[in-house]
Amino acid sequence: MNRQPADVGMSVDEVDTPALLVDLDAFERNVEKMASFCSESGVRLRAHAKTHKSPDIAKFQIARGAVGICCQKVSEAEAMVDGGVNDVLVSNEVVGGRKIDRLAALAGRARIGVCVDDAGNIADLDRAAGSAGVKIEVLVEVDVGAGRCGVAPGEEAVVLALRVADSANLEFAGLQAYQGSAQHIRKFGARRNTIEQSIAKTRDTVDRIAAAGLRCETIAGAGTGTYRFEAGSGVYNELQCGSYIFMDADYGRIDLEHRSGNDEFGNALFVCTTVMSKARSGLAVCDAGLKAHSVDSGMPLVRGRTGLEYTGASDEHGQIKDPDDSLELGERLWLVPGHCDPTVNLHDWLVGIRNGVVEVLWPISARGMMF
Amino acid sequence: MNRQPADVGMSVDEVDTPALLVDLDAFERNVEKMASFCSESGVRLRAHAKTHKSPDIAKFQIARGAVGICCQKVSEAEAMVDGGVNDVLVSNEVVGGRKIDRLAALAGRARIGVCVDDAGNIADLDRAAGSAGVKIEVLVEVDVGAGRCGVAPGEEAVVLALRVADSANLEFAGLQAYQGSAQHIRKFGARRNTIEQSIAKTRDTVDRIAAAGLRCETIAGAGTGTYRFEAGSGVYNELQCGSYIFMDADYGRIDLEHRSGNDEFGNALFVCTTVMSKARSGLAVCDAGLKAHSVDSGMPLVRGRTGLEYTGASDEHGQIKDPDDSLELGERLWLVPGHCDPTVNLHDWLVGIRNGVVEVLWPISARGMMF
Repeated sequence: MNRQPADVGMSVDEVDTPALLVDLDAFERNVEKMASFCSESGVRLRAHAKTHKSPDIAKFQIARGAVGICCQKVSEAEAMVDGGVNDVLVSNEVVGGRKIDRLAALAGRARIGVCVDDAGNIADLDRAAGSAGVKIEVLVEVDVGAGRCGVAPGEEAVVLALRVADSANLEFAGLQAYQGSAQHIRKFGARRNTIEQSIAKTRDTVDRIAAAGLRCETIAGAGTGTYRFEAGSGVYNELQCGSYIFMDADYGRIDLEHRSGNDEFGNALFVCTTVMSKARSGLAVCDAGLKAHSVDSGMPLVRGRTGLEYTGASDEHGQIKDPDDSLELGERLWLVPGHCDPTVNLHDWLVGIRNGVVEVLWPISARGMMF
Repeated sequence: MNRQPADVGMSVDEVDTPALLVDLDAFERNVEKMASFCSESGVRLRAHAKTHKSPDIAKFQIARGAVGICCQKVSEAEAMVDGGVNDVLVSNEVVGGRKIDRLAALAGRARIGVCVDDAGNIADLDRAAGSAGVKIEVLVEVDVGAGRCGVAPGEEAVVLALRVADSANLEFAGLQAYQGSAQHIRKFGARRNTIEQSIAKTRDTVDRIAAAGLRCETIAGAGTGTYRFEAGSGVYNELQCGSYIFMDADYGRIDLEHRSGNDEFGNALFVCTTVMSKARSGLAVCDAGLKAHSVDSGMPLVRGRTGLEYTGASDEHGQIKDPDDSLELGERLWLVPGHCDPTVNLHDWLVGIRNGVVEVLWPISARGMMF
């Protein structure tokens, strides 16, 4: 774990840069808003930890109603269990003997679920769970449109569900039916139509599994861009939203039903950066480049400053168009990152601030956990 | 530091994935080739450590003739000095009291240089060096075309050079004149023309500084895409190449003088990944996404396998077009990352392999060092 960029009690203006700031008021409002929505909608929230990679935040979400968390990797799940989280779904396939053995060992310490889309993989999981003397809960993943992992909805999923149910050391728990590629569709109508197709495929699969004599206790999916559709479907009963706690520039660009842009949740994550060169007219260079935020979904936005545009990132530098030369050397800016999850993965600490003061430092314990 | 993906002596097929592999034969050939070139050309090599972030590799380069290394951040320089490197240029501006104080402290432990492009920053460095009782070597950075940090070539640089020379605790060491935006220009002729302009600006600035009574002991710049031009210029005397040790997909696309593509240095860095889903025809999903490699310069290439194309990355997944369904679940692939530097920054370990066996594990000690 690298050096902390700040100490508790410090003014936010003293935080070393670049650093990841969490606006605690905005973060808490986001958590409460989603918790209230799930409670009112009668669906469970299993918040996705790939956004924050922090057991502290995971426990905060669970204390406010989440039933547990999702991770994508065994090593992330280990970091969460080590940090005191006792209910983790690896919302992903786990392939390879070493990883599967570690997953089984973890199931001796916490409630652990995993996804499958292959019969051979089910046999591997069953064997490892048997050797470890544990039960692992298994969701069959169906590809409801993202074109990534998962078998086709319908009969392929039924076959795997029966296979899981017949495995001595596995428990068939239901379906993983996440439509990841719909989350960032800009237009509200197009996004809704895409998810309606996913819902229809999921409903049909649930019905077929029921006809085969099995019950899906969990029908899981949804992200920050589409969760209202899944929650209102009457099919999904567990949401896996992650980004809502922080938001990012790309999620801010999707349209809500009645207006352009997305302000349903507030930006709570910022890359604090310092102007480190102001030698040329019209340009400022800041100390946050590719090592401080991820540009896979576009450039970050400069918060609260009109006329400034972050136009390019190199490894260690950000170029900021400053046509009025309004910036000075050493001045600080807050950037809204383009994509929150991989940005968090570049840092070791989340610096929680309130009223201009550092209130808490959360280690990003699952940073870089990729096995 | 996260868990190692492998142990020394292990077969490469047992390395946990995704992991960063270094083909040691290719790496050593690259290091030797650049060392020989510099020796024959009569220029110094100060290898850029932002590529590898490893004191072990830095010391390997120095043992083969490099005069020292470059870093971009004070925290990286600290990691290098802690790891036994005793000559580090921070080839970047250092702005802000805490960072400058740390830089001055480091200059008490190793030979330390830094770049400047602002008179106020020179005063801050001088004060900190005085307080720490050290001398810091200073290069004036000139913008020779990249449009990033650095003052304009010519008189602006002369003014700063004189200012440095007049500072009690600083030593004027010369010019930083790196043309970063030229490195990846595809066409050989366009790349050469761009650097010829940089050389002309640098030469003129050196001459003016000489006319003002100062000598540039170091005239530094050049990267893996352009180093032969700077080395042959009769102006530059210190090269700062970094990527040549590993190479990447983007550097592989620039043209050499007599042919398309760039095979001057061999690919030595690979992301080893496992097929974790093969549920759909025509598609395989691997376990290396945005957390395992950086896509800022394009998608990675699949090494040694025709007909396979890595077409998209999400946080934890890579989508690989597999029209012949040639891949099997659990199969391993080696990816040539799009951009080596930010890819290395995502990992904690470099796994050095030779003849199919893990020979060494190098900690990426300066990973995530951004202050």
